[in-house]
Amino acid sequence: MGCSSIIRCFFDYSTPKFLVIQSKKVGAINRLCQALVIAYIVGYVCILKKGYQDTDSVISSVTIKVKGLALTNTTDLGLRVWDEADYIVPPQEENSFFVLTNLNITPNQTQSQCAENPGPETSCVSDRDCKRGFHDSRRNGVQTGRCVNFSESEKTCEVFAWCPLEKNNNPPKPAMLAEAENFTVLIKNNIRYPKFNFNKRNILPHVNSTYLSHCVFNRQTDPDCPIFRLGDIVSEANEDFQTMAVQGAVMGVHIRWDCDLDLSEKSCVPQYAFRRLDNKDPDNVAPGFNFRFSKYYKNADDQETRTLIKGYGIRFDVMVFGTAGKFNIIPTLLNIGAGLALLGLVNVVCDWITLTFMQKRHYYREQKYTYINDYEILSSDVP
Amino acid sequence: MGCSSIIRCFFDYSTPKFLVIQSKKVGAINRLCQALVIAYIVGYVCILKKGYQDTDSVISSVTIKVKGLALTNTTDLGLRVWDEADYIVPPQEENSFFVLTNLNITPNQTQSQCAENPGPETSCVSDRDCKRGFHDSRRNGVQTGRCVNFSESEKTCEVFAWCPLEKNNNPPKPAMLAEAENFTVLIKNNIRYPKFNFNKRNILPHVNSTYLSHCVFNRQTDPDCPIFRLGDIVSEANEDFQTMAVQGAVMGVHIRWDCDLDLSEKSCVPQYAFRRLDNKDPDNVAPGFNFRFSKYYKNADDQETRTLIKGYGIRFDVMVFGTAGKFNIIPTLLNIGAGLALLGLVNVVCDWITLTFMQKRHYYREQKYTYINDYEILSSDVP
Amino acid sequence: MGCSSIIRCFFDYSTPKFLVIQSKKVGAINRLCQALVIAYIVGYVCILKKGYQDTDSVISSVTIKVKGLALTNTTDLGLRVWDEADYIVPPQEENSFFVLTNLNITPNQTQSQCAENPGPETSCVSDRDCKRGFHDSRRNGVQTGRCVNFSESEKTCEVFAWCPLEKNNNPPKPAMLAEAENFTVLIKNNIRYPKFNFNKRNILPHVNSTYLSHCVFNRQTDPDCPIFRLGDIVSEANEDFQTMAVQGAVMGVHIRWDCDLDLSEKSCVPQYAFRRLDNKDPDNVAPGFNFRFSKYYKNADDQETRTLIKGYGIRFDVMVFGTAGKFNIIPTLLNIGAGLALLGLVNVVCDWITLTFMQKRHYYREQKYTYINDYEILSSDVP
Repeated sequence: MGCSSIIRCFFDYSTPKFLVIQSKKVGAINRLCQALVIAYIVGYVCILKKGYQDTDSVISSVTIKVKGLALTNTTDLGLRVWDEADYIVPPQEENSFFVLTNLNITPNQTQSQCAENPGPETSCVSDRDCKRGFHDSRRNGVQTGRCVNFSESEKTCEVFAWCPLEKNNNPPKPAMLAEAENFTVLIKNNIRYPKFNFNKRNILPHVNSTYLSHCVFNRQTDPDCPIFRLGDIVSEANEDFQTMAVQGAVMGVHIRWDCDLDLSEKSCVPQYAFRRLDNKDPDNVAPGFNFRFSKYYKNADDQETRTLIKGYGIRFDVMVFGTAGKFNIIPTLLNIGAGLALLGLVNVVCDWITLTFMQKRHYYREQKYTYINDYEILSSDVP
Repeated sequence: MGCSSIIRCFFDYSTPKFLVIQSKKVGAINRLCQALVIAYIVGYVCILKKGYQDTDSVISSVTIKVKGLALTNTTDLGLRVWDEADYIVPPQEENSFFVLTNLNITPNQTQSQCAENPGPETSCVSDRDCKRGFHDSRRNGVQTGRCVNFSESEKTCEVFAWCPLEKNNNPPKPAMLAEAENFTVLIKNNIRYPKFNFNKRNILPHVNSTYLSHCVFNRQTDPDCPIFRLGDIVSEANEDFQTMAVQGAVMGVHIRWDCDLDLSEKSCVPQYAFRRLDNKDPDNVAPGFNFRFSKYYKNADDQETRTLIKGYGIRFDVMVFGTAGKFNIIPTLLNIGAGLALLGLVNVVCDWITLTFMQKRHYYREQKYTYINDYEILSSDVP
Repeated sequence: MGCSSIIRCFFDYSTPKFLVIQSKKVGAINRLCQALVIAYIVGYVCILKKGYQDTDSVISSVTIKVKGLALTNTTDLGLRVWDEADYIVPPQEENSFFVLTNLNITPNQTQSQCAENPGPETSCVSDRDCKRGFHDSRRNGVQTGRCVNFSESEKTCEVFAWCPLEKNNNPPKPAMLAEAENFTVLIKNNIRYPKFNFNKRNILPHVNSTYLSHCVFNRQTDPDCPIFRLGDIVSEANEDFQTMAVQGAVMGVHIRWDCDLDLSEKSCVPQYAFRRLDNKDPDNVAPGFNFRFSKYYKNADDQETRTLIKGYGIRFDVMVFGTAGKFNIIPTLLNIGAGLALLGLVNVVCDWITLTFMQKRHYYREQKYTYINDYEILSSDVP
């Protein structure tokens, strides 16, 4: 082929040849299928999934401030007021905060010897039942090898430990800091969609300092107030605060920022939801949430003492979710393309119906297909 | 149909019949559209989005070590040196660290009675104005029911609380630990792309112990040094450290590991970026970042006392992002397939142009389409 | 065109005309290509990637309880028992826990003056070598301007600091809390797939309280026990606990919940994996994981003292991954559609083979394509 012939070929435009069947039956089926596909594209892809938008995931920062006072009156501690510096442990976490609601306290522990709590493996009759240096992870201390009186009637192996030992008892009921139900927490949440350079925070522009100083979140009356009563958070999750306060729990505070940035910025507001994250069945194994921590002191003799606290409480995990969308030509084109490709598949369905079920299927088939029989060609080629 | 006929049908190969229009106009439009689609596939899908690569998300671990000393001289505390064990609260967090920059301190609090801070609801004239046992989340303690002198001129209700009460005052200005600007932080970040079994850390292989002992990150001169001066982090985010130190803030340290694992491992290096995450407008409600914590002591009488600290400071949230890509046959085939499907759509556009705008559109249409009129067949079938 | 003509057009059904080549060679190639595509769709998309399922990402909450005792005997501290309230610092974190395994302790520090540790910049001969008020981030205190005896033979600049200073020494070897190898940790993990309203926890339904009180995770014998021995976690990651305990490290505990919710709920169980996250090469710069924290006391004179602890230990980061899938009609249709589109591409390949390599390619080409030469039309149009 010459050069001009190649150039000619370059400008050849190949377009498929079509058979047009002017039949109401086939045409109706065809248009119906096409309508279904278009409805799917417009309805699901464009409207529901916003296929014409580019999306971005949220980056978030959360800070928390709890307020409230609780008064306890126990024989161990006497009358005592608890404020946020006492009941928030540790004082600062990234996306989470723990509120102490109940506690077992063991004051004035020192490193010394005392009788182990009674149990199948710790009871003894004489020193021979105790093994010097023995300890395992389910005991409180290291055995000294002596068998001593635990109470007037019972003898147990002596241990070297933080003595006196913590008593193996259940959490107080009702919870000591039952008043935590009325504590409030201010959750400050700043979000950012980096792709769209969009920032917003959950203290909305119309919220002023005066409103913020007295408001409490309420889904009906104060949906924009970022101050939550702990009791409300728990009851929105269909749980009972006082029951939960005894054993402790983990609560999820979900903040959802789903924003359509093609609309006004005002329509991008946080949605709050609250869920219990741990398993609530009280009969289950290892229920609730608690951990031990201690405060260290030195007594007059410069000896270290500590107050051991087994703290039960509610950990609130603040989780921020969200997707923002904004019009962008690339995903729009991609979705239109995919939609047209899907339209092409309609033909497959209609062809199958036309060529299988229609009365004139043989005639249609004859018109649609041109047969070349390779064998015939062979025979006709060699006459 | 016989068995041999079915086998024959099985080997039938159906290929669409094409009309080839040898026209420069139509051909040029066709090739132009194809060129656009190919340019998009090559440019956007292959080069920009690396469509021939399989991708994986980063798994990261971050550890942090802050160094620096600050000297303060106040009437409450006297001359005092602050080191990392003093100003990092809590001492260890997973992906975050808090540096104390300013504080209101209330030493020697004990559980006792004192006059509430004056305010609209706490001022009183006689005991009748005070309600025994009353407390709410915006007060400091539980009212005892007595009205006592707050100062010589003012009387307020007495409360049972941690006394003396914290004064309702603003953070010191300038910030007490203003020297925090010169603190440095070593951020150790190990990342892993599990799908490709690829590990790397931000202390790059060519960085040795000597360099690490004196280097400070600088985008121009020391871009590989993982030690950051806090003042530099803040100024890179276009903020003023000393202003920020007074009220506290939340800063984001973003480490981005976007790696093309088809290239040399050396080209996979972290990119650092710094942003302020909270809202900086000083006039806005609830600005900055602070929290209260306390240190507990026992005095000579074995009574518990505490030092309450309202700590203002900067929380640095370290966020690690990243995607790694490596050649894989599956996404390559998928993208080529999608590209060819898109090429098919070019026909739709060219057909529309050819059959609507070209001079010989009727002739083309005649050649492209073969019409079967169902009604005519019916009439011709029954002659 | 009249109205009836438009309605007629609306019911036109266009279907491409096909050339059917009845050739064993071409047919075989065609069917082979189709088989490959169908195998890919069925095998990869449907079975491997479960393309017929809608998917959701896991939401998780993790709580942790460590148990175990360690006994240390040092000159500084004497005989001492360590329990969880001592060696877990901070006592509670969201998805992470730190176990102290080794420490350098500096007790009884007070804010006072003492000689700086010797070094190139701190050694001095007379007061003139020391600069009052000077301090940098690599020193321990603020210079007072005096040159004092550090030891009998050495003089260094005096500093105002927490004195006595921490000695610049290496971590004790073997690790002080070497017994941490036998500590156990109960990891409670509740997960949720919000889209499918599916909750589960890693304490499986068949695990009862009795089993939980004595079991320890073992991949062969106790794969469902959520209690892990720290030594086992480390050895599963192919590391040596005692070596790791000296310098500290960061370990990842990966819990994977990949659930096919079309199957029974019982088949949705967690998979545990353990990895070292930091860089283990002991010769590398800044190895291990440690941080400083302190306990504050007041002595008899009401002066603040502190015990500074440089704690080495293992931070365990618990990471929960997972995807759940459940049959959904939308992704099923999308994947079938994409598969059929891919089938269409088989034609492109077969056409190329048929029209390029087959003996009768010219005859096929003649039958497949109808040529219209624009120029000829022009000339024949104007006779």
